[in-house]
Amino acid sequence: VRAGILAVGSELLGSDRLDTNSLRLARRLESHGVELVRKSVVGDDEARIAAEIAGLIGEVDLLLVGGGLGPTADDVTREACARALGRPLIEEPRVVAAIERRFAALGRVPTANNRRQALVVEGAEVLDNDHGTAPGQRVEVDGRVLFLLPGVPFELDRLVERYLEPWLAAHAPGGALERRTLRVAMRPESEVDERLAPLYDEFGREAITVLASPGEVRVRFLAHGAERSRRERLETMLRRGRAALGEAVFAEGEEATLEGVVGDLLAARGRTLATAESCTGGLLAERVTRVPGSSRYFLGGVVVYADELKSVLAGVPPELVAAHGAVSEPVARALAEGVRERLGSEFGIGVTGIAGPGGGSAEKPVGTVHLAVAVAGEPTLHRALRLPGDRERVRLLASQAALEMLRRRLLRADGT
Amino acid sequence: VRAGILAVGSELLGSDRLDTNSLRLARRLESHGVELVRKSVVGDDEARIAAEIAGLIGEVDLLLVGGGLGPTADDVTREACARALGRPLIEEPRVVAAIERRFAALGRVPTANNRRQALVVEGAEVLDNDHGTAPGQRVEVDGRVLFLLPGVPFELDRLVERYLEPWLAAHAPGGALERRTLRVAMRPESEVDERLAPLYDEFGREAITVLASPGEVRVRFLAHGAERSRRERLETMLRRGRAALGEAVFAEGEEATLEGVVGDLLAARGRTLATAESCTGGLLAERVTRVPGSSRYFLGGVVVYADELKSVLAGVPPELVAAHGAVSEPVARALAEGVRERLGSEFGIGVTGIAGPGGGSAEKPVGTVHLAVAVAGEPTLHRALRLPGDRERVRLLASQAALEMLRRRLLRADGT
Repeated sequence: VRAGILAVGSELLGSDRLDTNSLRLARRLESHGVELVRKSVVGDDEARIAAEIAGLIGEVDLLLVGGGLGPTADDVTREACARALGRPLIEEPRVVAAIERRFAALGRVPTANNRRQALVVEGAEVLDNDHGTAPGQRVEVDGRVLFLLPGVPFELDRLVERYLEPWLAAHAPGGALERRTLRVAMRPESEVDERLAPLYDEFGREAITVLASPGEVRVRFLAHGAERSRRERLETMLRRGRAALGEAVFAEGEEATLEGVVGDLLAARGRTLATAESCTGGLLAERVTRVPGSSRYFLGGVVVYADELKSVLAGVPPELVAAHGAVSEPVARALAEGVRERLGSEFGIGVTGIAGPGGGSAEKPVGTVHLAVAVAGEPTLHRALRLPGDRERVRLLASQAALEMLRRRLLRADGT
Repeated sequence: VRAGILAVGSELLGSDRLDTNSLRLARRLESHGVELVRKSVVGDDEARIAAEIAGLIGEVDLLLVGGGLGPTADDVTREACARALGRPLIEEPRVVAAIERRFAALGRVPTANNRRQALVVEGAEVLDNDHGTAPGQRVEVDGRVLFLLPGVPFELDRLVERYLEPWLAAHAPGGALERRTLRVAMRPESEVDERLAPLYDEFGREAITVLASPGEVRVRFLAHGAERSRRERLETMLRRGRAALGEAVFAEGEEATLEGVVGDLLAARGRTLATAESCTGGLLAERVTRVPGSSRYFLGGVVVYADELKSVLAGVPPELVAAHGAVSEPVARALAEGVRERLGSEFGIGVTGIAGPGGGSAEKPVGTVHLAVAVAGEPTLHRALRLPGDRERVRLLASQAALEMLRRRLLRADGT
């Protein structure tokens, strides 16, 4: 099976936006052993979209078109597809009804533009979109298949999961290439690379990819071939990778998150968490609560930007701030211990630092961060960090380091 | 002048790399008023590259091809271009000499593969590459122009500066394309579109682009032509756009953020803010503190996930939660008022809701959110929302709606 991807949207031809949907689509195709032979981007121009579809549909078995299904006048993918295939557009009553229901739930009435989203290429299957008003469409053309998908990433992903994935499972040859990923937090890429060096020799350099992003390194193991030998090879590589990287591995798989792993550890041990943050400004609590069900173990947190609030909300003695400065080891410890006691949790995290761009000094430059983890009935842990990068990066890395510090502490509590 | 971009490289069809060269090329084209009509990516496959070049060269005046000029066996852009144009490849002695000199300087001798880089499409001008062994090429075809450029970003940029830029200056109409953007928060795309309908008629549909992302709609106004008329046209469009959209416009420009605008309003009025969040879990405080210098107006916040903490940290009477539930108008109001009083700010925001996936009921489904803004000495404002989407989306939209609610309140305080 050979596939092509067409992204529609004039904004994708400008100088600040790329078609990132194609990366996620490419991953799906890869995992089913489908060869992606061509990607293209055209603007919101009916004739051009139509020409592109007409050209591509002759070249590939599976054509994924994303974008241009919305309600505005420049959303013309429906019309372009109909023109390319020489078929009429038909208003689908079921979609009209769904749009009307959706608007009614919000107390509104759809406009004529909204109704355009119910136009379907003759013979197409409607792909229900529960998260937007524009449905997708699946059209068969002489044994080839064309999917019209929304351009909004969130909606696209859901339609892909619901409709494209089963199609691929049924029609693609099945897992020619398979990969597994180990994830490591807050370790340098060069360290990960060195630890993996013996595996490069054993399994080949091309079987292992090391990808760094802020605060995280992903190690991807690839294997081709028949299912059984491929799986065995992957299992061996993963085992060796885990042995080489040790406790630094926080998860396996592309989907896992550090906050999810920490949450699972807390939930499994029946422990609760509270946070007190200064420089991260709520990012730590926000990450912890991204996880569905986090209310089982997260009680709450305080964001103490003004120094007085460090005392009011987390019980930090004002004289500590006066003596050591708000960004200091004693204040980080007091934040962690104070929030743990006040909020009544077993674990407390304190974060204080200088995210920049202002506020740095020679002694405490931008990027200086103090972290503390308080544990009921045990000594409080502390780490001092000098983090690189701008405000956003410092905040991200500080929250990442705090989660990783708690993760390691939770592992030890378990004796592993 | 209409242009197309073709990126060559099998790695660009995978799931972790995008053709980012095209963004910088697009910016160059934009600044010369050249319309980019199509971008595509193909792998290192001679027949496919040739087909792509043959197709594109008939459609555009300027075709920029990047990648596939290196010395390895999979670098086949030269051969593909020659095939597409039906011209032979000729070894260019000047390039051979340059390659030999380059290798000699490193004490090495070029291989046969390295010499392949001296092959030039008949009639092409060689574009010297001081930073790599592969030169670029410029080929004229029936009044159209094709540039073959290296894929390495650093080398590409230098050839673009040295050869493409002068070509654009000489051949493009000049009088660039310029754009300005108005930003609207928490209004439906369809509403924005309808309000702008009279402007579409007046200025042309292609001059105005409406781009929706979660909780935000961007309206981009484009104008071509000589500087003065272009500017005047843009100013007129912006004035009309602002009149059509009214107070819904929160900012002009691509860089502004809603949290930044709210921060500027607070700072300009010398007012302070505190937040009390349940379902957003710290996201609201995190957004407010993304803004450098937010400590001028943001005192702090509380994340009250556990119901008891709504009382402990924000003084919500437990009987309110018992009588109305944690997700209710009275609790949102009490959160906003309580956090404002406890933290000593002029403004307080309270957010309580059901982000999902669990916790919904028939009466209060997932997406139910209550927002309140408390103001010192004035009645507290309240809004009830039903937000669409998953957990992440509901949280994002709730924080967006809270910021927008505060923005509107700050505008009114000023009497505008």
